[in-house]
Amino acid sequence: MLEKLFLPESVAVIGASKKPGKVGHDILKNLITCGFKGKIIPVNPSGGELLGLKVYSSLRDYESTVDQVIIVVPGKYVCDAARDAVAKKAGSVIVISAGFKETGEEGRQKELQLADICRSGGARLLGPNCLGLINTENNLNASFAGGGMPESGGIAVFSQSGALCTAMLDMAKGRHLGLSKLVSIGNKADISEVDLLQSLASDESTKVIVGYLEDISSGDKFIKAAEEASNVKPVVILKSGTTAAGQKAAASHTGVLAGAETAYGAAFKRSGVCRADTFDALFDYATALSMQPPPKGDRILIITNAGGPGTMAADAVEKAGMQVAELDRNITTALRAKLPAAASVGNPIDVLGDADPERYVEALKAAQQDADVDGILILLTPQAMTKPAETARAIAANLDHSKPVLASFMGGADVLPGRRELAAAGLPDYESPERAVAALRAMHQYGVWKRRPPRLVTRFPVNRRRVERIITRKQRTGRLQLGEVKAKDILKAYGFHILPGHLAIDAQEAAEVARFIGFPVAMKIVSPNIIHKTDLGGVRLNLGSSQEVEDAFELMTLRIRQHAPDAIIEGIYVEKMAESGLEIILGMTRDPQFGPMLMFGLGGIFVEVMKDVTFYLAPITEDEAIQMLKSTRSYEMLKGKRGSKEVDIHAIAGALQRISQLTTDFPQIVELDINPLIVGEIGSDPVVADARMTFAPKNNKK
Amino acid sequence: MLEKLFLPESVAVIGASKKPGKVGHDILKNLITCGFKGKIIPVNPSGGELLGLKVYSSLRDYESTVDQVIIVVPGKYVCDAARDAVAKKAGSVIVISAGFKETGEEGRQKELQLADICRSGGARLLGPNCLGLINTENNLNASFAGGGMPESGGIAVFSQSGALCTAMLDMAKGRHLGLSKLVSIGNKADISEVDLLQSLASDESTKVIVGYLEDISSGDKFIKAAEEASNVKPVVILKSGTTAAGQKAAASHTGVLAGAETAYGAAFKRSGVCRADTFDALFDYATALSMQPPPKGDRILIITNAGGPGTMAADAVEKAGMQVAELDRNITTALRAKLPAAASVGNPIDVLGDADPERYVEALKAAQQDADVDGILILLTPQAMTKPAETARAIAANLDHSKPVLASFMGGADVLPGRRELAAAGLPDYESPERAVAALRAMHQYGVWKRRPPRLVTRFPVNRRRVERIITRKQRTGRLQLGEVKAKDILKAYGFHILPGHLAIDAQEAAEVARFIGFPVAMKIVSPNIIHKTDLGGVRLNLGSSQEVEDAFELMTLRIRQHAPDAIIEGIYVEKMAESGLEIILGMTRDPQFGPMLMFGLGGIFVEVMKDVTFYLAPITEDEAIQMLKSTRSYEMLKGKRGSKEVDIHAIAGALQRISQLTTDFPQIVELDINPLIVGEIGSDPVVADARMTFAPKNNKK
Repeated sequence: MLEKLFLPESVAVIGASKKPGKVGHDILKNLITCGFKGKIIPVNPSGGELLGLKVYSSLRDYESTVDQVIIVVPGKYVCDAARDAVAKKAGSVIVISAGFKETGEEGRQKELQLADICRSGGARLLGPNCLGLINTENNLNASFAGGGMPESGGIAVFSQSGALCTAMLDMAKGRHLGLSKLVSIGNKADISEVDLLQSLASDESTKVIVGYLEDISSGDKFIKAAEEASNVKPVVILKSGTTAAGQKAAASHTGVLAGAETAYGAAFKRSGVCRADTFDALFDYATALSMQPPPKGDRILIITNAGGPGTMAADAVEKAGMQVAELDRNITTALRAKLPAAASVGNPIDVLGDADPERYVEALKAAQQDADVDGILILLTPQAMTKPAETARAIAANLDHSKPVLASFMGGADVLPGRRELAAAGLPDYESPERAVAALRAMHQYGVWKRRPPRLVTRFPVNRRRVERIITRKQRTGRLQLGEVKAKDILKAYGFHILPGHLAIDAQEAAEVARFIGFPVAMKIVSPNIIHKTDLGGVRLNLGSSQEVEDAFELMTLRIRQHAPDAIIEGIYVEKMAESGLEIILGMTRDPQFGPMLMFGLGGIFVEVMKDVTFYLAPITEDEAIQMLKSTRSYEMLKGKRGSKEVDIHAIAGALQRISQLTTDFPQIVELDINPLIVGEIGSDPVVADARMTFAPKNNKK
Repeated sequence: MLEKLFLPESVAVIGASKKPGKVGHDILKNLITCGFKGKIIPVNPSGGELLGLKVYSSLRDYESTVDQVIIVVPGKYVCDAARDAVAKKAGSVIVISAGFKETGEEGRQKELQLADICRSGGARLLGPNCLGLINTENNLNASFAGGGMPESGGIAVFSQSGALCTAMLDMAKGRHLGLSKLVSIGNKADISEVDLLQSLASDESTKVIVGYLEDISSGDKFIKAAEEASNVKPVVILKSGTTAAGQKAAASHTGVLAGAETAYGAAFKRSGVCRADTFDALFDYATALSMQPPPKGDRILIITNAGGPGTMAADAVEKAGMQVAELDRNITTALRAKLPAAASVGNPIDVLGDADPERYVEALKAAQQDADVDGILILLTPQAMTKPAETARAIAANLDHSKPVLASFMGGADVLPGRRELAAAGLPDYESPERAVAALRAMHQYGVWKRRPPRLVTRFPVNRRRVERIITRKQRTGRLQLGEVKAKDILKAYGFHILPGHLAIDAQEAAEVARFIGFPVAMKIVSPNIIHKTDLGGVRLNLGSSQEVEDAFELMTLRIRQHAPDAIIEGIYVEKMAESGLEIILGMTRDPQFGPMLMFGLGGIFVEVMKDVTFYLAPITEDEAIQMLKSTRSYEMLKGKRGSKEVDIHAIAGALQRISQLTTDFPQIVELDINPLIVGEIGSDPVVADARMTFAPKNNKK
C-alpha cells in the first residue's frame, strides 16, 4: 500500500530551485545527497542544470513517466503542476506548498480541486502544506527538513505538524533513535492518518507507529485502522488540542459530562492506541515498544546499585498501579550466594555502590529466570567504581529476550558511554527511573489490550419496529426532546424493565390508575416544555391512597401553572413506586467523530458533585461494560457498603449493552439519559425510574 | 554557619591512600586537582609522600591545628581518628567510612559514640557513610566523586543518598548547570537537612536549595528551617519512599485516611517547599527557580514558530490549572504591524515557521510589556529557516527580567547550539513544552506561597483546665479510647456546640431525660468496648415519645447483649435530636514527625467511598482552614447544591481552628474524629453529633 509514495523509482521536483535555503532547492538536495538511487528529475521554467542534473523547463518535456512528483511552486500554480504530474502517470504527488485550506474558504476550494485532479488521475496526494516524507529503507528524503538522513530503525512517524516533524527528526538524531519512515501529513487532502496506519501496519521495517494528531478525519475509519494496526504492532499517539475546545451545549447529563477529550480517550482505548500525554512520553514509549516485548503482567523487578534511586523506582511502580515483584525464594537464595553479604536481594535488588558488571548480570539472570517477574528495570548511578559502558555491554550480552528490560543510567556526562552502549544493544534507557516506569506502564497497557478477549457483541431480541415508528413520528412533529413516557416506551421495546403506569389527565383518572396498578405510586408531570421536573415541584413520590393521589394531582397542576404558566401540560404520569435500590445513571451522547459514547455513573452526588463517570464507545461487549463499572471510583458502592447489599452488576452491564444496541441501531438518537436506573440485589431486574432522549432533526441521520 | 565545613583553610585526610581507585586516594586527589587553595594534610600510618605532599603517619604528628578532617579509614578505626581530629581543634569532621547505623544495632551504638566525640570536641560531623562535600566557591572538593569540579553556579544540592549525589553531579555536568555546593549527608549523625537549610539559606552564592530526602530527622525543626529558607530562596525537594511505607494501624477515620505520604505533603505545603515528584522534575524546577523570578500570577503567554507545539503548550498550561494569557488589544495591534500577515498574535503568538530572531524579539517585547502576562514560554522547532543559536542570543539580549521567561527548543542535535546559548544566558530550557510548563507551575506555586498573608493563629478562650482533668483521669485508668460522652465534654470545653443530653442507666431514666430535654431525641449506647455503635444497633434516632424511648432502651440493651455479650454497657446516652444539616467530618491524627494533622471532609460516601479529604498541619489559621475546605472536590456541596442552601463555611473553619488549638494544647490526644459535625445555614452553630478520641499512654507525651 502507498507503494508509489514510499518506494518510487523516479521522483520529479516541480519548483526545483538554484537558491540554497529555498524549499525547492533543499528538497532536491536532500534527494540527491541522502542517497536516493532512483531517477531524479528537477523541473523549473528556467531550465539549465542544477546540482549536476538536467533541469526540465516543464515536466511535460520529460520523456518518460514518473512515479512521484513533489510540488514546491507557489499555491496558484499547484493545480497545474498536479495536472502535469498525473499526465506523467505519477502514482504519488507530494504538495509542499501552502496556501490551501489553512487560509480560508478560497483555499479550501482550491484544495478540493487539487485532490480531485490527483484522485481522477490515479495519484495519491500527500499534503498540501507539508514537510514531505522520508523513507530510510530506500534512502528517499523527499522533505525539506535539515539535518540529512535520519538513522535507520524501527520507528515510523507521522505528524500533522510539519514543524513537529523537524523537532522529532532532530530529537531522534540526538537520541540516536532509528526511524523507518517519517511522513508529514499536512492538510490531509487525501492521505490521512488512516492510510498511514494501514500502510505502516504491514510495513516490515516498521516496529512501532508514532503519530502526532490535532484532529481525525473520520472516527469510524480511524478506530478500524488503529485497531488493525495495534493488533500487529504498537501505535503511540500524541493528540493535542484537547482542553482548548470548549464544551458543547448539551441537554443531557451525559452530554454535559462528556468533554471534547472524552471521545478521543474512548477511541484510543478501544483501538489499543498507547496515548502519550507529552512530547517526551511519545518517544519514551515508542523507544521501549520498538526495542522490547510488552510484559505479560505488571510485576516489575528493579535492579540498582544505590538505595535512593531504587526507592524512587519502587514508588513510581506503585503510583503507576503496577506491582513491585517478589522474587521466588529459591532464586533469591541462589542469587544471595553470588552477591556480597551487604547486597539486598529483595526488590529492589541492590547490587551495591561498588557493583561490577558481573553483579548486574547475576541479578539480571535471576530476574529473567523467575516466572513471577514480568518486567525488569535496571538502574545505575555513576559511583566511583561504576563502569557504565562495561555494565551496559554485559547486560546486553545476557538478555534472554523473554521479558522487557528497561534501563535508567542516571546522570549526564559520565554515564553517556553506557547509554550509547544500551542504545546500540536495543535496550531502552531513560534519564530518570520515573520515565522508565511510565514506559513500562504503557507497554503493560498495550499488552493487556493485546490479550483482551475476543469482542463478541451480544444482540438482544428487541422490538425494533416499534422504536422506528416512535422516532419517525417524533421527527415529523419536529419536537426532538423526548420526555419520560415516550422514552420509557422506547426503552421497553429494547428489553428494559418499566414500572406499570399510565398518563392521567385529571385527578379522578389519576386515582383510578393508581388503584389499578396498586399503591404506593409516584406522580410526574408530563410536559414537553419542562425538562427539570423536580425543580418545579413536578414530581411526587410514595402516594398511598386515592385521596393522596387526587390531592397531589390538583396541587401539582396548580403549582406548575404558577411557576411555568406557558408550559403545555399533557397530564400527570401515575406510576407504581419503584422498590428502593441503588440509583445509577446510564447515558449516551453521540460524538460527531466517534458515534455513540456510553456513560455509566452512580446517581446523585457521585455524578453531580464528583463527576465520577466513565465513557465507552458503542457497540460494547459484556466484558467492556463490566470494565466501565470497575473503572469508576465509586465501584465499591456496587459491591455493597456498610448495611447495603451487593447489587446485580451484570444487570447493569446488560442495560449498558442494550443502550449500546439501541443507539447503534438508531443514529437518530443523539442523546439519552436513564436517570436513575434503580438497581437491586443479584437476580433482580433493574428498573428505569426516569429517562429522556433527544433526536436529530429528520434530515440528519448522523 | 557551618563555616568550618564549607570554608576550611586546612583539610586533613585520615586514610589517604596511594592506590588510585581507593576512596582515600580519590578524595586527596580531588582536593588537590580541583584547586583547593588551603593546606592539605594527608595522614597514613605508612608515612612518606603522596601526590607531592608529605604524609603524616598520625594526625597528632602534625604541628598545627586543622579546620577540617576527612576520615576514610575502616569503620573500627573511625572513632580514634575522630579523637585525633578534635585534638587538633577541627571544626568539621567528614566521615566517609560506612559500617554504622546502616548495619544494625552495634553500628548504631558506634555512630552515637562518634557523634559524641565530635560534639564534645566542638566539631560538626558530616556523615558517616557519605560521599563528602563540594564547595565551588573555594574549589573545595572533599568528596570521592569522579568527574572533577562541577561548574560554579547558584544551585546548592544536599542528598541523603550518596549515589544520587553522583548522578546529580553527572547530570549537572551534562546539562551545564552550575552548582554552589553539594553535600552528601549520609547517616546524618549530626549535620542534617535542618542544618543545611539554615546554612544554605544565608549562603550568598546559593540561589536555590535542592534536596533529596528519604526521611526527616525532626519534623518541627524541619518545618521551621524550611519555612525560613523558603522565605529567602526556593527550596525544591524530592522525597522518596512515600508509597512503600505501609499504612499504620489507626482507630480513627482520620488516622486511616492519612497515609505516610500525607504528612510530608502537608509539611512541604506549610513550609513553602516545592515538591518534585520525579528526578527530572527536581532539576527542571531548580533550574527555572535559580535563573528566573517567580511569576506574579498564573497567566502564561506562549510564543512559538509552529502551531502544534503551541497547542501542546496551551494544553499543558490549562491542565496545570494556569491560564493562557490574553494580550492587551493595543499591544496586539502594535505587534501585528511588526509580524507577517499570516502570523497569529493571539495566544500562542505564532511567529511562523520561517521566523527569524527579530520576530521572536518583537513577540517577546510585546509579552514583556503587557501587564496582564505573568510568565512567558518560548517554543522553537528547528525548521528550514530557523536559527536556534541566533534566536537564543536575540531573546537573551532583549530580556527585561520583569517576569519569568522559559524556553523549549524542541529537538536534539540541531537545536543544541541554541540550547547552549540559552543556558549561558540564564534562560531555562526544556526538552518539551510540558516540562517547561511544569516548571512554570512550580514557580507559580512558590510565588503564591511567598505572597501568602501573615500567619495569624487565633487563640480562642477555652476551658483548658477541664480538659486537663479529664485527660489526666483517663490516662490514670489506662482506658485510652474516649467515647462519645467524654469526647463531647472535651469539645464543649473548647467551645464546640453540644446538644443537651444525659446518660441514662435504665428505661425510666431515659424517658425522664427525654422529657426534660424535649422530644425528639436520639439514643446511643455507651460502652468502652464498642467503637462502631451503629453496626451493632447501638444508635436510635428521632424518638418522639416516652414510650418510644423506653421501648428503645430495652430493645437496644437486649440486642447489644446478644451481639456483644462481654461488652461493658455504661448506659444509654439520650440526646436532643440534631436539626438536619450537612454532615461533615473533622479529625486529627498525630504524625510522629510533624505532630497534629487536621482533616476535613464531607461525611458519608464522600469520605468512605471517594476518600475526598484534605489534611493540614496544626496550628492552622482561618485562611488556611478555608483553603482546606476549598481543596476538596466536594467543596461545591458546601456552597449549596440543588435544593440545599449554602452552609456556614466560616463556622467549619472555626471548628477546625478549635481542634487545632485543642490538639496543640494537648499532645496527649493522638487521634480525634468529629463524625459528623452537623453544619447549617450561615449564622447557625455547627453541632457535634458524634465524636471520639484516643490518648497516648501516660508516660508518652508526644
